[in-house]
Amino acid sequence: MADPLDCRAVLHLASITAASWVDRAIEHIDEILLDHAHCEKKAASTALSLIFRYPERPALMLPLSRLAREELAHFEEVVALLRRRGREFTRQRPSPYAARLLSVVRPAEPQRLLDTLLCCAMIEARSCERMQRLAEALTEPELARLYRGLLASEARHFHEYVELARHLELASEPELRARLGEIAAHEAEVLAAAPAEPRMHN
Amino acid sequence: MADPLDCRAVLHLASITAASWVDRAIEHIDEILLDHAHCEKKAASTALSLIFRYPERPALMLPLSRLAREELAHFEEVVALLRRRGREFTRQRPSPYAARLLSVVRPAEPQRLLDTLLCCAMIEARSCERMQRLAEALTEPELARLYRGLLASEARHFHEYVELARHLELASEPELRARLGEIAAHEAEVLAAAPAEPRMHN
Repeated sequence: MADPLDCRAVLHLASITAASWVDRAIEHIDEILLDHAHCEKKAASTALSLIFRYPERPALMLPLSRLAREELAHFEEVVALLRRRGREFTRQRPSPYAARLLSVVRPAEPQRLLDTLLCCAMIEARSCERMQRLAEALTEPELARLYRGLLASEARHFHEYVELARHLELASEPELRARLGEIAAHEAEVLAAAPAEPRMHN
Repeated sequence: MADPLDCRAVLHLASITAASWVDRAIEHIDEILLDHAHCEKKAASTALSLIFRYPERPALMLPLSRLAREELAHFEEVVALLRRRGREFTRQRPSPYAARLLSVVRPAEPQRLLDTLLCCAMIEARSCERMQRLAEALTEPELARLYRGLLASEARHFHEYVELARHLELASEPELRARLGEIAAHEAEVLAAAPAEPRMHN
């Protein structure tokens, strides 16, 4: 996935991260790391909330629980790295990205679950793309190693969320693909409109 | 911990589970297993919610995240076991135990955090005691093995929650011990008043 165009195609992203985001992220890397820790925690919480919301969907239980555990392990990894850099995990003004992205979720089932899973997939896809850019650009070996290690998980999580939607047959295959395309276009718009603060998804 | 009196002392429990609970649990073991899966999921969610609520308490982050991961791994273990028994994870009327136990939490900080951690500790302690009784009484090897494997984790979680409260110096040592005793007495009352449905904490 060295070519960002290739990464974009695999991950169904509708836009490529600008070099200016990478420069700004590296300039404010501790703020990005803190946001990243919050993102992992939020991702675990989202997966767990789906387990609570859909107990009548047994196919979701084990994959989402494993995914939540993995997000928590990443949370711990980033919190420990922050600590080694003399920083502590703390509150931070969140990016409006996730809430704005999820505003596209339709209220009635099964569209609600379909859209939620596809939005989760797109968040993972964007994280993967941005982590790849960070891994390529960071000169501190420990940080580059962190992002090289994590981006493969993010790509896998993207596929897992899409596969869950497919497995549950929440829509026909053409409908699922069309909706993924719509949500990817929406994701690119939300990202482009995000404030300038250094965040993983601004 | 073969002697239940010894177990009670180590875990600070103010009552011992009656043999009638054990008999009823074994008679309705699939209902107990389903409740157990819900309890593990709820325990993970509670630990994660504390991470969200107290980001300014860095000492909580890594221990609670690891604890949540462990609860999720147990959730997966019980869901997989239910599946092997031809049952699926599904909704179930919850026991009022946890909500009634947590009603003792005082609203102002730092008492709120102290009481929450000690209530979590007591839930783990009671789970440990009951899992030990199940492990001793169950004749199906797979089930006895499950509970023998889990009860040590529950005992460790009890100690971890108490140690977190101690480490954060939320109260003096005599105050902490006194409050643990009060909450243990309250836990025994809540348990005695729980409805007769077969649940881990009824």
